[in-house]
Amino acid sequence: MTAVLKILEKYAESINHELEETLSTISPPRLHESSNHLIKAGGKKIRPVLAILSCDAVGGKPENAFKTAAAIELIHTFSLIHDDIMDKDDMRRGKSSVHFIWGEPMAILAGDTLFSKAFESIVKTQLDSGSPEQIIKALDAVADSCVKICEGQACDMEFEGNFMVSEAEYMNMIYKKTAALIAAATKAGAILGGANPSQVDAMEEYGKLIGLAFQIQDDYLDVVSDESALGKPVGSDIVEGKMTLMVVKTLENASKEDKEKLISILQENNLGRVGEAITIFEKYGSLEYTHQVALDNVRKAKQLLDILEDSEAKKALLLLADFVLERKI
Amino acid sequence: MTAVLKILEKYAESINHELEETLSTISPPRLHESSNHLIKAGGKKIRPVLAILSCDAVGGKPENAFKTAAAIELIHTFSLIHDDIMDKDDMRRGKSSVHFIWGEPMAILAGDTLFSKAFESIVKTQLDSGSPEQIIKALDAVADSCVKICEGQACDMEFEGNFMVSEAEYMNMIYKKTAALIAAATKAGAILGGANPSQVDAMEEYGKLIGLAFQIQDDYLDVVSDESALGKPVGSDIVEGKMTLMVVKTLENASKEDKEKLISILQENNLGRVGEAITIFEKYGSLEYTHQVALDNVRKAKQLLDILEDSEAKKALLLLADFVLERKI
Repeated sequence: MTAVLKILEKYAESINHELEETLSTISPPRLHESSNHLIKAGGKKIRPVLAILSCDAVGGKPENAFKTAAAIELIHTFSLIHDDIMDKDDMRRGKSSVHFIWGEPMAILAGDTLFSKAFESIVKTQLDSGSPEQIIKALDAVADSCVKICEGQACDMEFEGNFMVSEAEYMNMIYKKTAALIAAATKAGAILGGANPSQVDAMEEYGKLIGLAFQIQDDYLDVVSDESALGKPVGSDIVEGKMTLMVVKTLENASKEDKEKLISILQENNLGRVGEAITIFEKYGSLEYTHQVALDNVRKAKQLLDILEDSEAKKALLLLADFVLERKI
Repeated sequence: MTAVLKILEKYAESINHELEETLSTISPPRLHESSNHLIKAGGKKIRPVLAILSCDAVGGKPENAFKTAAAIELIHTFSLIHDDIMDKDDMRRGKSSVHFIWGEPMAILAGDTLFSKAFESIVKTQLDSGSPEQIIKALDAVADSCVKICEGQACDMEFEGNFMVSEAEYMNMIYKKTAALIAAATKAGAILGGANPSQVDAMEEYGKLIGLAFQIQDDYLDVVSDESALGKPVGSDIVEGKMTLMVVKTLENASKEDKEKLISILQENNLGRVGEAITIFEKYGSLEYTHQVALDNVRKAKQLLDILEDSEAKKALLLLADFVLERKI
């Protein structure tokens, strides 16, 4: 763990500097403050670090990816601000959410501004630190992931109260909503580092797999962790009736009776019935299955890095793959 | 007028085809429908036509600007969708607004999706129809205008109920909110057409000036037109207490007594007092002043086109400069 934190720390200053510079000129003051709020509230900045390490690991200069790394963090933050409006979440990163403080109109604009700034940031990548063709390819990867983020969030909204979602549909939703931006980070980083096409594909797939693993593990930890580690009651997803891989898998395999019981629990919004739901998950092996899928994704992600020569950056990418199973990113 | 409509018609099919293709792959269906709603509701598509004509007028192939032209229309539409949420407007282009039909969360996402697609579209400009350096410069112009649109909308929100706004602040607000995207259209078009730096600057300034003229004239027409031409009661801006160049100019020049009277009218939300406000505007010459500023901007915009060799596209740009004074764009 300490090793990972050291890696994250190593680039924190450069990323924060890049973000600060990019956002410094925004006016009027209320838009400046609301756009900066979540950026300043912290977050581990694992996405931008993945972009920088991917650039480094294929033989590029890390700084060539700084502006794209910042863009990835801006896009992540933009999506959090808009998601919080849509989901009516009043808290984020231990602070009040943007719309809670500044109201919805300003929060919509703050998100839009970060989104605009993200593209401005990539475009301003010094042409001497990457060929124009590379910059366009990096932009393509990032723009494509933005479309997917929107589609993933829309799917997630569509899934609410729909108990017919298949495993493939669920995986496609979390790919778009969560993994696509991480895949864009590692892909764009590799492109800007001068990777060959096979390396670019491998790095994109690596990002996708650890992104999927993170989301699946997040679902899993909600049920198997304790309250102090989670910072919220065990089984919150069950209480909220959220679609998770455990739910999808159980509904696929369970008897008619257990299926109906699980659906009634998911619809009931009752913390007292979390234990019953977990018992049903266990009966059909859905907990082990979910954990195994997360582990498999991480294992495959690490294997993909065989395409890279040994380096400190490669070591860091291997460590970060395991890290997504442990902590909120 | 007919000449202008012919110009707009000439490119309508290409632009609509480009938009349709760009948006065809969006899923799930609700996101696809909500994203397409305003695009299909019409609009004159004057912004994309300006991009294409600017490319053509500097000697480029019009089709080199098609994807960027589509992107400009996508960004315009994205900003309308989000503005309608912020302003709680239930109608747009004679139809129900996106949030009115699909709800705010889906409308936020529909806007975000169009925004993402805009950048995807520019990036996908065939490299053989423009050098990568040109595509990056075009992207830079467009991304920069997106930041300005957000800043302009935030300023507009800040101005509500603020009667100390100066003429310079007002002009800066409408530049960012309305003119910057039009300037990006003409600038990006010129870049993709292979314009030299002086031509690029002139085309950007041309776009900015006709954008300003359009907004100022829009304010002016609200007071001097009749209801049938406007499609809404004369003086709606006054009833809504909107900041316009007439208001800013009058508050700058009026006696203490007239100033207080005008402010009380703007705060009262009363259609019956529109006439009184217009009388005060006239007393201080604010109507003539406003109309003159719009005319001056159009005149200067047309002069800037002297830098271009004579062509059909140049003729069209001259006609379009006058057109912004006459009709909703």
